[in-house]
Amino acid sequence: MTRKIWVFDTTLRDGEQVPGAKLNLREKLGIARQLKRLKVDIIEAGFPSSSAGDFNSVKEVAKKVGNTDDIMITALARAVKSDIDAVYNSIKYAKRPLIHMVLGTSNVHVEKKFGKSKDQILDIGVEAVKYAKTLLPDVQYSTEDASRSDFEYLWSTIEAVVKAGATMINVPDTVGYADPEEFGHLIYRINERLRNLNDSVILSVHCHNDLGMATANTLAAVKNGANKVECTINGIGERAGNASLEEVVMAIKTRPDAYNAHTDIVTREIMNTSRMVSEFMGLDVQVNKAITGENAFAHSSGIHQDGLLKSRDTYEIIDPKDIGLEDMELVLTARSGRHAVRAAFERLGINQFEDAEFEEVFESFLELADVKKEVYSHDLYVIVENYYKKRHKEGEKANSYSDYFYELLDLQVIDNTKFPSASVELKKGDQFMKGNAVGSGPIDALYSAIIDVCDLDIKLIQYDIRSVSRGKEALGKVQIQVEYEGEKFIAKAFDTNILRSSAYAYINAINSIIAESIIPKAENI
Amino acid sequence: MTRKIWVFDTTLRDGEQVPGAKLNLREKLGIARQLKRLKVDIIEAGFPSSSAGDFNSVKEVAKKVGNTDDIMITALARAVKSDIDAVYNSIKYAKRPLIHMVLGTSNVHVEKKFGKSKDQILDIGVEAVKYAKTLLPDVQYSTEDASRSDFEYLWSTIEAVVKAGATMINVPDTVGYADPEEFGHLIYRINERLRNLNDSVILSVHCHNDLGMATANTLAAVKNGANKVECTINGIGERAGNASLEEVVMAIKTRPDAYNAHTDIVTREIMNTSRMVSEFMGLDVQVNKAITGENAFAHSSGIHQDGLLKSRDTYEIIDPKDIGLEDMELVLTARSGRHAVRAAFERLGINQFEDAEFEEVFESFLELADVKKEVYSHDLYVIVENYYKKRHKEGEKANSYSDYFYELLDLQVIDNTKFPSASVELKKGDQFMKGNAVGSGPIDALYSAIIDVCDLDIKLIQYDIRSVSRGKEALGKVQIQVEYEGEKFIAKAFDTNILRSSAYAYINAINSIIAESIIPKAENI
Repeated sequence: MTRKIWVFDTTLRDGEQVPGAKLNLREKLGIARQLKRLKVDIIEAGFPSSSAGDFNSVKEVAKKVGNTDDIMITALARAVKSDIDAVYNSIKYAKRPLIHMVLGTSNVHVEKKFGKSKDQILDIGVEAVKYAKTLLPDVQYSTEDASRSDFEYLWSTIEAVVKAGATMINVPDTVGYADPEEFGHLIYRINERLRNLNDSVILSVHCHNDLGMATANTLAAVKNGANKVECTINGIGERAGNASLEEVVMAIKTRPDAYNAHTDIVTREIMNTSRMVSEFMGLDVQVNKAITGENAFAHSSGIHQDGLLKSRDTYEIIDPKDIGLEDMELVLTARSGRHAVRAAFERLGINQFEDAEFEEVFESFLELADVKKEVYSHDLYVIVENYYKKRHKEGEKANSYSDYFYELLDLQVIDNTKFPSASVELKKGDQFMKGNAVGSGPIDALYSAIIDVCDLDIKLIQYDIRSVSRGKEALGKVQIQVEYEGEKFIAKAFDTNILRSSAYAYINAINSIIAESIIPKAENI
Repeated sequence: MTRKIWVFDTTLRDGEQVPGAKLNLREKLGIARQLKRLKVDIIEAGFPSSSAGDFNSVKEVAKKVGNTDDIMITALARAVKSDIDAVYNSIKYAKRPLIHMVLGTSNVHVEKKFGKSKDQILDIGVEAVKYAKTLLPDVQYSTEDASRSDFEYLWSTIEAVVKAGATMINVPDTVGYADPEEFGHLIYRINERLRNLNDSVILSVHCHNDLGMATANTLAAVKNGANKVECTINGIGERAGNASLEEVVMAIKTRPDAYNAHTDIVTREIMNTSRMVSEFMGLDVQVNKAITGENAFAHSSGIHQDGLLKSRDTYEIIDPKDIGLEDMELVLTARSGRHAVRAAFERLGINQFEDAEFEEVFESFLELADVKKEVYSHDLYVIVENYYKKRHKEGEKANSYSDYFYELLDLQVIDNTKFPSASVELKKGDQFMKGNAVGSGPIDALYSAIIDVCDLDIKLIQYDIRSVSRGKEALGKVQIQVEYEGEKFIAKAFDTNILRSSAYAYINAINSIIAESIIPKAENI
C-alpha cells in the first residue's frame, strides 16, 4: 500500500476570504456536507474569533457535519488565548475536533509585524500550544511564512512546539514565494529531523499561488515527506489563492510512479464540489482551469481531435469520468417526477431535505420547469438557494422585522429608444407603494423607480450580471455593490428574468442598508 | 549579466484554439502589436494550413508587426511539405521569419497516431527540416509529447534534426503530464548533450497545464538549461491551457536567486496585454488567477491587512506597479477631451488610429460618455471593437451583400407580470419589416419578435450575458450559441443596454447563418 496523504480543506476559511465570496450558514453547511462526501480528512470551517457569525457557523459545521469519526473539524486561531478559546468553544461539538493556530517565523513577520524578538515569539507559540493541549489532544501549529524563515529558527520553533504537544506541524508558503525544488528541499530537511524527534507528528504544507506554483510546491512537499496537504476547491483563497485540491489530488492519482502515494478523496465528487463552491460563492472558474475548467477536457485543435480518434491516450491523461464529469449534465423537465428530481439533487450532493421540505422544493422546480422547459444541474443549485432564501425571509417576518423591509410585488419595464421607463409596486409592512421613472436604459429606469419609492441616497458602484444556465430566459444572476453613507453593501439575486433579478438585487441591497442602519436604532427604542 | 530567456508567445496559435475564442483579423493584429510592446521575442501567429483566414492573418501579422529586427514571427506546420509551404508563404513578409514544425516522438504518438515505425517518423522529421532549410535559415523543431517519449529515441530525433539544420529545439509536455523534478531532469540531460552537439541551438520548452504545473515545469526547465519558454497570456490554450507568460516572467523577475536569469519583457505592459486578450477573446480571467486575476493583489483577511500596514513585504512579493496595475484605471468623462482620450487608448496599447479614424472613435466615445457618465478602461476596448465592427459592416455593404442581412432599426420591450412582449423593426436591403411577440420573459419575447420577422427555425442553445464595466447601464456583453439545420453558430454583441445587446447578438447569429447558407447559393447563380 502506498503512503496515505491527508487532505485538509480550507475552502471555508482561506477560500471564504475572497472578497464578495462570503457564505451564509446554509451555504457553509452545504459545502461542508459535500466536502464530507468528497472524503476530505479535515475541514477547516472558519476563523471563529473574527465574528459572532463565523463562530456560529463553525459550531454548526462541528455539530452537523463533524458528528462522525470519519472527519476532523478545525478552525483557525492566532496564538492568543481568546482566539484559542473561540476555536475550542466552536469545534468542541465535533467528534474529532482539532485546534489550529498560526504564528509567523520569518524575520519580516517576527520583527516587522510583531515587533518582538525571536525568542519572545517562540515562547508565545509554546505557551499557546500548552494552553490548547489543556483543552484538546489534537493541535496543529502553522509556522507562518515558513519558506522565508531562517531554517534554524524555524526548526527550533517546530522542535519546541512539538515538545509542547503539537500533533501536526504545518509549513506554509504564505506569500507564494517558493519554488518546488527549494520547497521540496525545505520539507525534506524538516521531515528528516522531525522523524527523529517524534515520528507520530504529521507534517503538512499550505501553499499559495502568487507565482502560479502552489500545486507544484505542494506536490514537491509530498515527494519529500509531507503527509498532509492543505488545499481549497478551485484553488480559491487569499490573493491568488491556495493549492487547488482537485489538481493536487488528481496529480497524485494520475502519477503513482512520481508520488508513490494516495489520498482517500472520492474523485467522482470533484466536479460536484467545484460547481457547488462556484455557485454558492459566486466565483466563476476560468474555462482553462486545470481539472475543473469548462474546457479542461475539450480538445479543439484538428490535430488533437484526429489523434484522439485513433487513441484517447494521445492527448488525454485523465478520464473525465474519474472526476464525475460525465455524470454531471442532467436535463430535467416538468414531467421528470419527484423521484428523478430527488435523485438529481442527490447526485449534486444536496440531500438534506425532509419530506415536507422536498415538496416545497419540488414545487419551485415545477414552476421553473414550466418557464424554462429544460432544467439543468446549475438550475438545481439555484432552486435550493431560492428556497432557503424564501424560508429565511419568512423567518425574519416571524421576528416582525418585516415592517422595515421592502418587498417587490410587481414591476413593469418598458424599453424603447426614446423613453426607457419602469414602474414598480413595493410593500413594506402594511404599506403598498408605487414608483416610476424614466431612465437612460431599462436598468437605470428600474433602479430609479425603486428609489422613487425608497428615497435613499444610494450610489450604484458595480453591477454584474451573469447567466448561470443555458437557453432562453436562463437564470440571470445579478450581483451589485452600492454605497450608502460611505459604507459599501453587496447584494445578489437570481431569477429567470434578467430584469427581475436586477430589481431583486437592488431591493436586497436596500434591505441590507436598512438592516444595518434602521433596525438597531429601532431596537434601541 | 544573467542569462537571457527568450519568450515565445503562442496566444495567437495555441491560445486561439480555445473554443469560442476565435479572433478576427483586426483583433489578431491588435494583440500582436501589444505583444510587440510587451517585447516578446517571438510571436507564433497561427496555423496557416488550417484555413485561408488563418493564412491571411499570419501574413498580415508578418507584414505589419514583423516589420522590424526586434521580433521574430513564426507559425505552425506539421512535418509535411504543404504545411511548411503555407508557413513560409505567410511569414516570409516578416524581417525575421521562423518556421516551426511539430512531430510526435512518444510511443503512443508514433505508433497509435501515425501507425509508423520510429525510424520512419525520424526520417520524415529530418526530411521536413531539410526542406524548410531550403526556404529559411531559422527552423524550430518540436518533439511532440516529449515528456512521455523514450529518452534515447527522443535524443536521436533531436540529434538528427539538429544535424539537418534545426536552429531551435522545443520540448513540449503536450498533455501536461510532467512533474517539475522529472521535467527539469529531462531538460538537463538534453541540454548536456545538445551543448556538445551544437552550442548555438536554442533549447525551448512548451508546457501544458492539465495537472496545474505548466508554470513550475517551465521554470524547472529554465533552471536546467532551457533558454526559451513558450507561453500564452493568461495561460489560455488547448484544454487546461499553457504556461502563462505573466507567471513565468514574474517568477523569473521576483526570484533572481532561484533562476539567475532574465527576460526582456516590459512587465508594466502585462496587465494591458492580459485585459486586451481577455476582452478580445471573450475569456474571463478567474479572480484568483496568479498575477493577472482581479484579486491577485487584494488582501482581505484582517490579519494580512494588519501586517501590510506595518510592512508591505509581510504579504506582498510583487509590486502591483511592476505589472502596470496602478496605471490601469482611468476614468474618463464627456469632458475629457481628445488629448486625454487618445492618451488613454495609447496606455491600453491601442494606437493604430489615423487622425480621421480617431475622430470617429472619439465620436463613439462621446456618445458612450453621454449615456454612462464615467468611461473606464474596459469600455475603451469595447468602443474600438464596435467601431471596427461598424466599419466592417459598411465594408460588407460595399460588396452589396447587405441585401441579405438584417439590421436592427428599433425595438421596444415591455416586461410585466402577465404579458412580457417585444416589438422590433428590422431592415434588409430596401425592405423594412416589423415583428412582435409575447414571450415567457423579456429575452424570450425579444427573440420571438425577431423570429417573427426572419422566420428561420433556430434553436437557442446558450445565452451568456456579462457586464464588462461598472455602474448602471454598464456595457452588457452577450454571447449566444444557436443551432440551425444541425450546425452551430456563435455570435457576440455589446451595448450599454442589456436588452439591446441581446437583440444585436441574436441578429448577428442570424446574419452568420445567412452568410453561410444563403450567400454561397446566391453567388452560384
